[in-house]
Amino acid sequence: MPDLETVVAEIAAEMAARPDRGQVATYIPELGRIDPNQFAIAVALKDGSTVCGGDCGKYFSIQSVSKVFTLTLALGLAGDRLWNRVGREPSGSRFNSIVQLEQERGIPRNPFINAGAIAVTDMILSGHQPREALGEILRFLQFLADDDGVYIDRAVAASEERTGFNNRALANFMKGFGVIENTVEYVLGVYFHHCAIAMTARQLAKAGSFLAHQGRNPATGHSVVTAERARRINAIMLTCGHYDGSGEFAYRVGLPGKSGVGGAILAVVPDKASVAVWSPGLDAAGNSHLGRIALEMLTTRMGWSIFGAPAGTG
Amino acid sequence: MPDLETVVAEIAAEMAARPDRGQVATYIPELGRIDPNQFAIAVALKDGSTVCGGDCGKYFSIQSVSKVFTLTLALGLAGDRLWNRVGREPSGSRFNSIVQLEQERGIPRNPFINAGAIAVTDMILSGHQPREALGEILRFLQFLADDDGVYIDRAVAASEERTGFNNRALANFMKGFGVIENTVEYVLGVYFHHCAIAMTARQLAKAGSFLAHQGRNPATGHSVVTAERARRINAIMLTCGHYDGSGEFAYRVGLPGKSGVGGAILAVVPDKASVAVWSPGLDAAGNSHLGRIALEMLTTRMGWSIFGAPAGTG
Amino acid sequence: MPDLETVVAEIAAEMAARPDRGQVATYIPELGRIDPNQFAIAVALKDGSTVCGGDCGKYFSIQSVSKVFTLTLALGLAGDRLWNRVGREPSGSRFNSIVQLEQERGIPRNPFINAGAIAVTDMILSGHQPREALGEILRFLQFLADDDGVYIDRAVAASEERTGFNNRALANFMKGFGVIENTVEYVLGVYFHHCAIAMTARQLAKAGSFLAHQGRNPATGHSVVTAERARRINAIMLTCGHYDGSGEFAYRVGLPGKSGVGGAILAVVPDKASVAVWSPGLDAAGNSHLGRIALEMLTTRMGWSIFGAPAGTG
Amino acid sequence: MPDLETVVAEIAAEMAARPDRGQVATYIPELGRIDPNQFAIAVALKDGSTVCGGDCGKYFSIQSVSKVFTLTLALGLAGDRLWNRVGREPSGSRFNSIVQLEQERGIPRNPFINAGAIAVTDMILSGHQPREALGEILRFLQFLADDDGVYIDRAVAASEERTGFNNRALANFMKGFGVIENTVEYVLGVYFHHCAIAMTARQLAKAGSFLAHQGRNPATGHSVVTAERARRINAIMLTCGHYDGSGEFAYRVGLPGKSGVGGAILAVVPDKASVAVWSPGLDAAGNSHLGRIALEMLTTRMGWSIFGAPAGTG
Repeated sequence: MPDLETVVAEIAAEMAARPDRGQVATYIPELGRIDPNQFAIAVALKDGSTVCGGDCGKYFSIQSVSKVFTLTLALGLAGDRLWNRVGREPSGSRFNSIVQLEQERGIPRNPFINAGAIAVTDMILSGHQPREALGEILRFLQFLADDDGVYIDRAVAASEERTGFNNRALANFMKGFGVIENTVEYVLGVYFHHCAIAMTARQLAKAGSFLAHQGRNPATGHSVVTAERARRINAIMLTCGHYDGSGEFAYRVGLPGKSGVGGAILAVVPDKASVAVWSPGLDAAGNSHLGRIALEMLTTRMGWSIFGAPAGTG
Repeated sequence: MPDLETVVAEIAAEMAARPDRGQVATYIPELGRIDPNQFAIAVALKDGSTVCGGDCGKYFSIQSVSKVFTLTLALGLAGDRLWNRVGREPSGSRFNSIVQLEQERGIPRNPFINAGAIAVTDMILSGHQPREALGEILRFLQFLADDDGVYIDRAVAASEERTGFNNRALANFMKGFGVIENTVEYVLGVYFHHCAIAMTARQLAKAGSFLAHQGRNPATGHSVVTAERARRINAIMLTCGHYDGSGEFAYRVGLPGKSGVGGAILAVVPDKASVAVWSPGLDAAGNSHLGRIALEMLTTRMGWSIFGAPAGTG
Repeated sequence: MPDLETVVAEIAAEMAARPDRGQVATYIPELGRIDPNQFAIAVALKDGSTVCGGDCGKYFSIQSVSKVFTLTLALGLAGDRLWNRVGREPSGSRFNSIVQLEQERGIPRNPFINAGAIAVTDMILSGHQPREALGEILRFLQFLADDDGVYIDRAVAASEERTGFNNRALANFMKGFGVIENTVEYVLGVYFHHCAIAMTARQLAKAGSFLAHQGRNPATGHSVVTAERARRINAIMLTCGHYDGSGEFAYRVGLPGKSGVGGAILAVVPDKASVAVWSPGLDAAGNSHLGRIALEMLTTRMGWSIFGAPAGTG
Repeated sequence: MPDLETVVAEIAAEMAARPDRGQVATYIPELGRIDPNQFAIAVALKDGSTVCGGDCGKYFSIQSVSKVFTLTLALGLAGDRLWNRVGREPSGSRFNSIVQLEQERGIPRNPFINAGAIAVTDMILSGHQPREALGEILRFLQFLADDDGVYIDRAVAASEERTGFNNRALANFMKGFGVIENTVEYVLGVYFHHCAIAMTARQLAKAGSFLAHQGRNPATGHSVVTAERARRINAIMLTCGHYDGSGEFAYRVGLPGKSGVGGAILAVVPDKASVAVWSPGLDAAGNSHLGRIALEMLTTRMGWSIFGAPAGTG
């Protein structure tokens, strides 16, 4: 096996040199202004160390990657009752499709499509003020990343609040079926703000580290969830983490992962590492173009696919 | 870690004692006559040995499990051109849904739903007589299982030919879009017959062994596919192997797997083992009821989930 | 042909005696309190007279019947440009389905499903304050009915504003596609209030009279629309006036009609009469149970179907 | 009102002069060879006379217009039990869509989409040989047209049998749900052949005449159906006769009508006339381009819309 530091440095160099950068998301105006010539990769290891390449200290909007953490938090609050209101099957549809929601009476297919994540946010909100729920989510991310620098980018949240009509449609639609319990605008307020959480690749890799290590963050020693729950969240990331591109990601990268339209992807190498990549340009399926390529290189060169070792090993 | 022989023996004993057996599939009349009080488990290991429990030498109809092998064969014939005619995303739908096929102009979502498997069979048939194509598929299974006892159950094939109206609808629908090239009845003839292949759990575990070991069958030393192709087939099994129950299987069992309505499931433990379970009673999602439970027990007790080790290990 | 006065009196008597009353709509709580033992029928004739039976002076919530009048008003404002934002095909779906809206990029199928009527309201609102737009709609109804007693039931409007999550979903969904131009809550405010317009059967029959008489109200002599536009609105009522029960209504009643969940139906007998029926209990398809039966009796006994005369006439 | 002879002659002359002819259907290869520079119009009146213009004696393939006559025949055989297996609502979908069929468990929306017409053919076939059933349909058309010249174009039928994969899909799909009782290939054989019936515009207008005149053909005096059944068939033609263009046809032409891909349209003017138009070029919705325009002219100039008289009349 090659040396991880070398592989990460190679990937960062190759990514910096590529002319193809994908397209920056424009449906949230504030995100449309980001310079696409940025790339970062960070790998958090079992020994607590992190290997980084590229713009590793640059903050970016984690967007839908936040759904992994709100799911974790809501499972802690509601336990398996959460699954009464959200499914765990791939949707076969775009991230914002409302069709299945009508056919399945307001129950979202999984917690990683927008409708599902909004329902999860509703469970976190339950019985609290939006400000408190949002504070709890932010503190959870700071705790996981072991870094108080994690913050909420209010300009991004405000931008999405002004334009998030489709999410408003999804939330009201679920409210009509009784799947959302709190006031729709409160739930959406918390949702838009947790999607606007800003982190660095280094922080994000560390924050996802508990998923790779039996539910425990090896850098801090904090136990976050049981080993079984960590495995199960990984399973949902694998089958549902990239909307209607989940099959493709599993096929090419071979790791549980969750992407966001800000250009971040969090990937988990069970029992080995947690990986964050970031590059703002997206591919046609709405996932980070260079981020996905970088993960494919990493997993190929390190032999990290969960679906089997490379030839000639073992 | 506990001893595999012990775990397999325990599982076989527990399964024999359970009163809940699921429901035998009746839509293929010939399958409706099977005694549900049967169970088998076979685990083929890297050293070429196989650990068995239950009715391990009993032949059963592998049904849709055959789709893993026809996909492997067709990839060998057509290479990645195969993906021009079949996708590799989970469908979010039942095994026989025709809705997506209309919306996506006859291109099936993946090779494991019926439509996709029929398109794969069409590629194998290309330029051959049905008899020849079928012979090739059978010989491929015998070669993989290293056992000439594998055979085609003509009564089951005939039963499905008489009742397979939905598959006939799917095939004609794709033909209308130009996705099927050969005569529809020829393609269906081969399809119904390869679904009617009969194997024992021991044979099936061995036949799937190349998927666990970098594309090479460790018992025979035969190289079947490249390590990369084995990983990619595993990825598709994980995301698409159980129709609209794929997310649930990943969540509970944590292994790539493919089920059939005959009650068989083939599961792959990358770099460790290939597992075949069989019990004819099905759950509501159409997967072997005891088979799925047995795999969940196996993967939990052996710590074999691809999504992370159990607590306290590593 | 029997005498109209006699037929109307017979129908009112038969309806009063029937034990089956349907179910009062409960999804708008305020409507759920209405006594189902009420029935009214009013027939406005070419000579300006009106024949009435039952509770003809009782006010009820016209609900979706208002969509006929807002369509008429919006066509007057926007002309055929209206059809760039709303189709005129039957939807084959329930009144509040969002599925087609996604497939057809936010363009509602026709102006009589909720999404279409909301888009029509958006066109009426354009460039005005909600209060002004609503005033214009109310005055239009008072003008058509030639009666200042027509009013807006604020309690019903408020009730729907509190519970109209599905309509909020539809409006936000269209806003996301750019089909709605004004602020969503303003559009919905006007929409909920015009649905809450309260009229008597006598007023409603007179208000619809221009549709039966070449666009001109024979009682007042006011010209409302051209004869061609009246015919075309009638055509849309026939094909789209009862959601996914439009075919059934055409089959049984044989007249253009538009129903509302308040239990009103407005039907048009071209060149002969305008008919309003009202009874609060609904059938499974959401149309007035006794209202539909009464119209079927009327059209059969009077030979008024637009699809052909009764046997032995002409 | 203008004189019918004059109007028909004007329309024929105007149609002959127009450069826009639409596109000849090519999905049935045999139909793709027809010369688009043809047009015919025939109006059968209550007094038994017929007014013709253009290529009125030219035979054409009536295609889906045959569905009106098979529905009439099947209603005669099965009565209202027919509606247990076929609905009567507009589908909101293309003529060959299979999506609704899956959602509604094999019950076609109405008898005029392909699936519904195939189910109707299955009812006519019931208990007969295909040859007998087909003979019965042909004799029924000859009887209605009062002309033994009506025949089946075997070349067109054979052409569709070779290419009708989508109809084969629909039929097998319904067979899987138990909605089709006879052998699929027998049903399709009869279906393809009755679609291939060849008639002239004059014959077709006469054959549809019973629908305009209380169920009785005024030219022959033959009673075909009751007046009520004629009205109800007209209602279904109005709401469902042009697939997902039914609303548009009602809006523009204002008559019950049924079109076929051969370029024929049969329209009914209740209590006045039966009209057949034919021109092989189709518009984007698959209806005769000039045929629809000619009917719109006819109905406008004669004041024949069922939705109201022209201004200044009555």
